[in-house]
Amino acid sequence: MQNELQTRLNKIQAKMQKENIEACLISSNVNLFYASGMIFNGYLFFRQTGEKIFFAKRPQGLNGSTIFYIRKPEQISDILQELRIPEPETLWMEGDEMTHSEWIRLEKIFPNSKLINSTTALRQVRSIKTGYELELIREGGHRQSEAFRVFPSLYKPGMTDQEFAVEMEYEIRKRGSLGIFRIFGQSMEAFMGTVLAGENAGTPSSYDFALGGQGLHPSIPIGQNGAPIYPGQTVMVDICGNFNGYNVDQTRIFSLGKTTPEAYYAHQISIEIHNTLAEMGKAGTICEDLYEKALEIAKKHRLENCFMGRSQQASFVGHGIGLVINELPVLCRKNKETLQAGMAIALEPKFVIDKIGAVGNENTYIVHEYGMEKVTTAPEEIIQLS
Amino acid sequence: MQNELQTRLNKIQAKMQKENIEACLISSNVNLFYASGMIFNGYLFFRQTGEKIFFAKRPQGLNGSTIFYIRKPEQISDILQELRIPEPETLWMEGDEMTHSEWIRLEKIFPNSKLINSTTALRQVRSIKTGYELELIREGGHRQSEAFRVFPSLYKPGMTDQEFAVEMEYEIRKRGSLGIFRIFGQSMEAFMGTVLAGENAGTPSSYDFALGGQGLHPSIPIGQNGAPIYPGQTVMVDICGNFNGYNVDQTRIFSLGKTTPEAYYAHQISIEIHNTLAEMGKAGTICEDLYEKALEIAKKHRLENCFMGRSQQASFVGHGIGLVINELPVLCRKNKETLQAGMAIALEPKFVIDKIGAVGNENTYIVHEYGMEKVTTAPEEIIQLS
Repeated sequence: MQNELQTRLNKIQAKMQKENIEACLISSNVNLFYASGMIFNGYLFFRQTGEKIFFAKRPQGLNGSTIFYIRKPEQISDILQELRIPEPETLWMEGDEMTHSEWIRLEKIFPNSKLINSTTALRQVRSIKTGYELELIREGGHRQSEAFRVFPSLYKPGMTDQEFAVEMEYEIRKRGSLGIFRIFGQSMEAFMGTVLAGENAGTPSSYDFALGGQGLHPSIPIGQNGAPIYPGQTVMVDICGNFNGYNVDQTRIFSLGKTTPEAYYAHQISIEIHNTLAEMGKAGTICEDLYEKALEIAKKHRLENCFMGRSQQASFVGHGIGLVINELPVLCRKNKETLQAGMAIALEPKFVIDKIGAVGNENTYIVHEYGMEKVTTAPEEIIQLS
Repeated sequence: MQNELQTRLNKIQAKMQKENIEACLISSNVNLFYASGMIFNGYLFFRQTGEKIFFAKRPQGLNGSTIFYIRKPEQISDILQELRIPEPETLWMEGDEMTHSEWIRLEKIFPNSKLINSTTALRQVRSIKTGYELELIREGGHRQSEAFRVFPSLYKPGMTDQEFAVEMEYEIRKRGSLGIFRIFGQSMEAFMGTVLAGENAGTPSSYDFALGGQGLHPSIPIGQNGAPIYPGQTVMVDICGNFNGYNVDQTRIFSLGKTTPEAYYAHQISIEIHNTLAEMGKAGTICEDLYEKALEIAKKHRLENCFMGRSQQASFVGHGIGLVINELPVLCRKNKETLQAGMAIALEPKFVIDKIGAVGNENTYIVHEYGMEKVTTAPEEIIQLS
């Protein structure tokens, strides 16, 4: 694990060298965990070269020659002085994660430093996984897929979408999912994932999710809404797997009895998009091109009006995945970034069929030089509930 | 509901008048829901008097004469100009919730406004509930207590703390808990609550929780750690109830077989602290005095060394509760704020007993002029699991 953490630090430090950043201060849980292997209440500080310095408020009992306990962040500058570490000219801080109040407080601790928002750069570093991280994602994909294989059998006649969702949550928790669903973005939230039956799949989302659902209560307008599941309707199951800190995204479609030819057809097109994109998506592929290819296939089959939503459509077909469910890159219109080997990507070409519900799978892939390796392996056809 | 929302707006506007704030911009989910009854992707704007103006990015389909769709926040100033609303001299923004990047972006939209951090003031407004909110908290307390009555029966011999926790989560989800656990504070996170068995109760928390536990995985170091439950040990169950947007906090102690006289004794002292504080805690009581009284009782019984933790002790005995689990006020040393009628308060005098685990209940109360009304009603004695 020490080697792994050193590799990650080296990756961040290489990015700092490239962007001419002298030092970095981290305090978000996700980046603390990424860079140090643990979450603590405090700050992690390091320069372009050299080791990590921990400024910890809690928990008590951490041991290490570079761990310093503080009561307040203002003590950081004194400790750095004692360590003869000069105030950096340029300092990375997590501007898209840190609250404004905290930024302002830290700004006073580094009065001569130019503070630069590190969020995107650190997300870019995180987007390319180490071999160790990829193994965790494969393991997560395997374990989540085992749960998905069992999910259809948990349906009992008469269940609402919520009752079915609770059974699936219970199943995946019993199998060791940590439950917590980490999302990037201050306004983003969800509980374990979404189960969208019938018309609810077309509800425009209050959040920045392609498909969202109405939710059970206006205080958390996402996911299942407690509606009955009617014969012929589909149930889109998008429950996150987080077995080891790394989120894995997988969506499968079930239907109550047989659904309509249009729904089966559109679902087959989703599988076609997956197959095409998994071959096309390799190191160097432009993110936008993947979205445009998916849209092109949807158009060829006259399904563009229900692609990635109905009344509210997203110009998007997938996203990076890892310590948060929505890592970089975003596979969307206008994104000229390229895929790189070691990225983990969730592809989710979905269609919303009037009166029936959503169809289309989501799979998590690892990007290689030659194409994409699928790590989510539950059966891909629409499975009938009975 | 319109009356309720008008009441809440009036409360915020009264606070603005008192603090001489001309306008307020809200974008955090909790405050959007509090002030408008819904969560959307966008901003809510209002002045000291007058109605709310919505700047919404998502979801599509909202209807209302004061709802304006925007693609980016920069459009806000144009719309305000069209509405002949002058740029405010003073503008509240949520400095402890908003990211620094977002603040900086909005700052440019209001170049002539003095921006003032609204977070604490809005939390203070939220801390005193309306009659409608108190009814929701009573309902939540009732429903959570019904679940807690069932919890001991879900234990099966040989279960680990995690296996037991998953059964209880499942039970409360089946009973309609929304699952989501909203906490104030950028670094705070937990999944549904904590179940701490035996020694794990004494693990110093990485988070700003009094008792935390090690957690199942370093990526989320909170709560149960997968350990077996040994005869004589206690299991502290602190699973949140969120049935209607309002969190209710309740903790109960179970033990595997009989536990030790010391544990029963300390648990009884926790109940004594509850009874004393519930009588003492009325409109006008100083928050610190409640903590000091609790500590005094602990000391009288020579339990101060294990009060609110063992190796890491919190100078704290409770907190406000509502749309987030940790609302204001905080019942802690040095807090001179006073209780006010309509506040909802969770009291949690807990003790950590070496080798045994935690004892002490947590209850949610509503503050009245005469004292505190308890809304969590599961049996208070230590219940034996078998």
